[in-house]
Amino acid sequence: MPDSTSSDFSPTPRTRVRRLHERGRYDRETIYAILDAALLCHVGYVIDGLPYVTPTLFWREGERLYWHGSSASRMLRKQSEGIPVCLTVSHIDGLVLARSGFHHSLNYRAVMAFGNAAIVADDEAKAAGLNAFVERLYPGRTREIRPILPQELKATTLMSMAIDKVSAKVRTGGPVDDEPDYALDCWAGVIPVEMRLGAAIPDQHLKPGISMPAGLDHLGEDGVLPEILRVLAKRQVE
Amino acid sequence: MPDSTSSDFSPTPRTRVRRLHERGRYDRETIYAILDAALLCHVGYVIDGLPYVTPTLFWREGERLYWHGSSASRMLRKQSEGIPVCLTVSHIDGLVLARSGFHHSLNYRAVMAFGNAAIVADDEAKAAGLNAFVERLYPGRTREIRPILPQELKATTLMSMAIDKVSAKVRTGGPVDDEPDYALDCWAGVIPVEMRLGAAIPDQHLKPGISMPAGLDHLGEDGVLPEILRVLAKRQVE
Repeated sequence: MPDSTSSDFSPTPRTRVRRLHERGRYDRETIYAILDAALLCHVGYVIDGLPYVTPTLFWREGERLYWHGSSASRMLRKQSEGIPVCLTVSHIDGLVLARSGFHHSLNYRAVMAFGNAAIVADDEAKAAGLNAFVERLYPGRTREIRPILPQELKATTLMSMAIDKVSAKVRTGGPVDDEPDYALDCWAGVIPVEMRLGAAIPDQHLKPGISMPAGLDHLGEDGVLPEILRVLAKRQVE
Repeated sequence: MPDSTSSDFSPTPRTRVRRLHERGRYDRETIYAILDAALLCHVGYVIDGLPYVTPTLFWREGERLYWHGSSASRMLRKQSEGIPVCLTVSHIDGLVLARSGFHHSLNYRAVMAFGNAAIVADDEAKAAGLNAFVERLYPGRTREIRPILPQELKATTLMSMAIDKVSAKVRTGGPVDDEPDYALDCWAGVIPVEMRLGAAIPDQHLKPGISMPAGLDHLGEDGVLPEILRVLAKRQVE
C-alpha cells in the first residue's frame, strides 16, 4: 500500500520488476509522468478464467486512474462488478540496434497498475469526471460544445481505480554490447520513435467561418503528443 | 476456427465485436495489416486468477504470432505452460473533436487475438525465428552482427500462437454529431496522430568510419513507423 506522504510506491510481490530489475522504477514522479504522457491504456481483466485486454482511453486525477466507455460494453459491465484489473501503459521511445541480435532492444517506458476497478455511480461525479477528461485534452472546450445529455450520461460508464499496486519499467540510452563485440565493423545506435500530430483536418460539415480556437493551439502540427499530454496534465493540477 | 482457404476469420462469441459493431472487422487483410504495422503488443494472461498485461515486441509469420523474452521471465514461464492469452495490438490514428463531449472520439485500429501460447522448443526453429525478427526490422542485419550464442538462445524464450480467434476494431473519419449540433459555432474535426522516427543517434562507442548501412535506409528521419513496418512485412513474404 502506498504512503501518500511519500513519493514512492512500495514494490509488492506482484509489482516488483523481476526481469532486468535495474529497469524497475517505483517513484511517484516517474510513474505519474509515464501515465500522464499517455492517452491509451490496455486494461486486462478475467472473464470465466480467460484473459481479455482492451485498449481504452484513460486519464489520471491525483491518485486515481479513470477510464470510460459504453454502459453496454462487456468489458465495463464485468469491471463494474469490482473485478481485478491490470492497467498497462506503454510508450515506444526508440529502436536500439546493437552488435548482436541478443542485445537489440527497444527504448520504452511502461507502467503496470493493479487494482479493483470501481464504477463511479454518482451522476454528478460522473459528469464532472467526463468533462474533466475533455478539458484535460482540450482546455476550454466544454464551454464551446453542448453539455452532456441525461441519456448520454446513462449510456456512459465511468470506471476508477486507486493507484497503489504499481510499478514502472524504463529503458533508455544506447545499445549495451558484449565487450568483444565493440570491435565489430557494424553500425550501432538508436533510432528515436515519437508519436507526432499531423495537420488538423476540419470536419467537412464545419459551418463556414469557424476556425480552430486558441484553446487548441497546443495541438499544432508536428507536436509530440506524449509531451503535450504531460504539459496538459501539469496545467490541470496547478 | 478459420478456414485457411477463406480470407475471413469467423467471429466467435469471444471475438465478435459487441459495442459499435459496425466498427468490427474479421477479414484477414484488415487484421494482418493492423498486426504487421505494429512492433509492440500487449499480452494478457492470468496467474492465480489475476490479470496481467505485459507490453512486448511481437511479429507475425503467416498464420502465427511470435513474441520473445527472457527465459527467466514470469510472464513467459507461465505462458509456456500453454495458458490462454489475449494478445492485443492498437494504433492511435487521430483525435476526433465533435460538437458534444459524448461524440468526441479516437480514430484507432485494434486487434484482439485469443489463443493458447506455445513455446518454440526446437533450438534451430527458435534461432531461425529470432533471426527472422531481426531481418524483418533490419533487412540484411544478421549478416553484419555476430551470430546468436548458445547461451543466448538458452536465455531466450520464443512463444508462438496461431491466429484463429481474432477480431479487429477500426474507427476512421471525422466526427459524427447529433443532427442539431451541426448548427453549433464550434470547431470540429480530426487531429491525426502518427508514430514517426527521429534522426538516428549513432552509438557513442561506434568505431570511427562506420556509417549506417544501406539496409537501414528505410528507417530515415520522419518515416512513419507503422507504414515502414507494413512494407517490411510484405517484403518478407515476397
